[in-house]
Amino acid sequence: MLKFFSKPARASAFLLSCLASSIACAADTTYPDAAASDPAKMGWMVGSPPPPDRIIRFADGSYFKFPAMRWSVSNFRQLMPTTNVSRGLGAPVPLNRALRKDIDALTFTPTGASKPMTWEQSLAANYTDGIVVLHRGKVVYERYFGVLNPQKQHAAMSVTKSVVGTMGAMLVADGTLDANKKIVDYIPELAKSAFANATLRQVLDMTTGLKFSEDYADPNAEVWQHAMAGNPLPKLADYTGPQTYMEYLQTVQPSGEHGKAFAYKTVNSDVLGWVIARVTGRNVAQLLSERIWQRVGAEQDAYFTVDSIGTPFAGGGLNAGLRDLARFGEMIRNDGKYLGQQIVPKAVVDDIRAGGDKQAFAQAGYDQLKGGSYRNMWWVTHNPDGAFMARGVYGQRIYIDPKAEMVIVRFASNPIASNSANDPVTIPAFEALAKQLITHPQ
Amino acid sequence: MLKFFSKPARASAFLLSCLASSIACAADTTYPDAAASDPAKMGWMVGSPPPPDRIIRFADGSYFKFPAMRWSVSNFRQLMPTTNVSRGLGAPVPLNRALRKDIDALTFTPTGASKPMTWEQSLAANYTDGIVVLHRGKVVYERYFGVLNPQKQHAAMSVTKSVVGTMGAMLVADGTLDANKKIVDYIPELAKSAFANATLRQVLDMTTGLKFSEDYADPNAEVWQHAMAGNPLPKLADYTGPQTYMEYLQTVQPSGEHGKAFAYKTVNSDVLGWVIARVTGRNVAQLLSERIWQRVGAEQDAYFTVDSIGTPFAGGGLNAGLRDLARFGEMIRNDGKYLGQQIVPKAVVDDIRAGGDKQAFAQAGYDQLKGGSYRNMWWVTHNPDGAFMARGVYGQRIYIDPKAEMVIVRFASNPIASNSANDPVTIPAFEALAKQLITHPQ
Repeated sequence: MLKFFSKPARASAFLLSCLASSIACAADTTYPDAAASDPAKMGWMVGSPPPPDRIIRFADGSYFKFPAMRWSVSNFRQLMPTTNVSRGLGAPVPLNRALRKDIDALTFTPTGASKPMTWEQSLAANYTDGIVVLHRGKVVYERYFGVLNPQKQHAAMSVTKSVVGTMGAMLVADGTLDANKKIVDYIPELAKSAFANATLRQVLDMTTGLKFSEDYADPNAEVWQHAMAGNPLPKLADYTGPQTYMEYLQTVQPSGEHGKAFAYKTVNSDVLGWVIARVTGRNVAQLLSERIWQRVGAEQDAYFTVDSIGTPFAGGGLNAGLRDLARFGEMIRNDGKYLGQQIVPKAVVDDIRAGGDKQAFAQAGYDQLKGGSYRNMWWVTHNPDGAFMARGVYGQRIYIDPKAEMVIVRFASNPIASNSANDPVTIPAFEALAKQLITHPQ
Repeated sequence: MLKFFSKPARASAFLLSCLASSIACAADTTYPDAAASDPAKMGWMVGSPPPPDRIIRFADGSYFKFPAMRWSVSNFRQLMPTTNVSRGLGAPVPLNRALRKDIDALTFTPTGASKPMTWEQSLAANYTDGIVVLHRGKVVYERYFGVLNPQKQHAAMSVTKSVVGTMGAMLVADGTLDANKKIVDYIPELAKSAFANATLRQVLDMTTGLKFSEDYADPNAEVWQHAMAGNPLPKLADYTGPQTYMEYLQTVQPSGEHGKAFAYKTVNSDVLGWVIARVTGRNVAQLLSERIWQRVGAEQDAYFTVDSIGTPFAGGGLNAGLRDLARFGEMIRNDGKYLGQQIVPKAVVDDIRAGGDKQAFAQAGYDQLKGGSYRNMWWVTHNPDGAFMARGVYGQRIYIDPKAEMVIVRFASNPIASNSANDPVTIPAFEALAKQLITHPQ
């Protein structure tokens, strides 16, 4: 059962830790299904004032409790401070559309299941809030549920990491950063932390050896300290720990050797964000605006949640429009080229697609991602289509299938944080659609 | 001297009360001038992390202390929760431009001064962050200073009231609201408050008789309770008062008779916001997006700060791009018509221009606005040009001069909250420019 703490700072620490990670925030339990937990039907925050049992507040932690969380993921800026990712002031470039009617009826068999499921059924099974499919750059499918619509931004959770990882790799490609350099060479303040002697490459690929537990059942887990430090709001009177992400990162201690095993730890992304800010003079929100958001014809600004000194949460703070994240994904699928401009160097996309160290990845034991790897904060399947993805808790995903010329972006609010809860449906569904697009390109 | 409180909730109460009002937040003192307090030159929040003496935080109240405040007014969303005012997803409609070079050298004599001043000098004298002048719908002048630029949003402070008042008057014009009805007829929850037997017209024109002091020097002033209630962030442990704007409004007690005198009190705008939300099912941020922002070709989303249950601060929470607020002003100047559409009924603009009760207004004793009036939350000068304006603390303004076919929108961060501090420069400067545009239309 999900448990909430009565004190505000505890509740917010809980939230931020969930945001930060792919580890489940809830243990085994049963939850109302997508229809029963539909945030629009539940009437969250409707009325002036809303009925008491339909109010979602930050201070009491109610906002991250399922099913209220299904409203919150489309309304983070209303709950906490944020910083803008400007799309610029020009005209958006509309996505071309060629909607297909054959997708909803597509069938596949979920991993471990005995019966097939339709694509349409998979949307509810995964508590989908919004999903868009591009084929050869055109929108072939687009759906919104609950309180999400095309004019809103949804939490991307750890999909953020892949966006930040892409920017890090861009800076390596243009020589601004050297992947073989040690982190301490960029951030002297990290000299006494585990990151000091890690290379930037190890951070980008999360093969650092860090004492950083994301076990929420353990009140002494480091993830609590990270979340509390990142909390931008007033701390409890007795709180004496780090006040910012940067202060927290300096306290992370080593565990094991760097470079040996893949270990998914959010703090790597925060360190990358810090390195990016130090060398470019721009935080990840500003850089994302300048280098990407203003160049892909985005129709909405995006935003990041921030800590008490305005540091964007590089490990999980991005919120964006569904179609804009699809523009980003399509740009990556096209080797970094979009709207006639080379936005991300082709070498960066080639490097992601080639993937990381498979042996290092295998040690992390992701059953449903066997044979995969992790590179520049992207998950690489190494399946026959060469698919790779960005993954965020509660079902957020960018899925790029080069062979099928397909990009899927999904926002969701699954009651279970870990993607291992939705992968048995998600992966076969996405693979089946890829196959359909290859065999019936229309 | 400005004083700050050590406890976070006190500091935030202080902020919100300053936001809410046109009364000075500072008594007589001397301040560094615009150049010496330039927020870009001061390097606020630059660096990763910024130097300790250049960090601006919400929790310690530093963000609203001059000169740090000059950075904060362009970055409110980074300090507190907000809600979006979507511009929609289409292409913005660029403002036509016909820049003039004769404006900077224009001279005028400030009220009570012996020597003339140039227009250009007036910008620094008023701690201007951004100013745009439209003449016959074209941009003839545009400047940005400090940390503001065309891609940012700036706090509009009590200019918000005129935007909300316009929406209220629109709903009166289309019959959704009846200006003669009592507030209690719309909001039964206000039955025991001073608002119960006030008419909607009295609220729109701020001729209500309310026990509501905006005297910041008095720790028992009602403005503190209002600000604390509106504070969306966790309250101090010993705080037991209202948790939202709506809860607070129910506690406002009467003082004197309704309908007798103009008395500028922010809570009237909050009540209007509540009435709007109750009858339309949309809060003022949602309604502003639907009825106006999506229809004027805005180039940026705007936003409102919110309380703990997401209620937009109707009395002062709007933040917007300078040019977008100019589009709004130009639409009003054109009798509510813009881009070929009637966005605000002409009757509403006629009603604002005709003004309110001059005798009621005179009783409030605004020396520099003698002969003026207040209607639908707009300030009407009744000068020979028929100028009217929206005014917000620290120098925010929309100034519409029908005879000169001129709209000026200014964002500023004057160290003194009250517009009485900048009116001696602002009013003669704006009148001189109007005269120049009439005599030299080019």
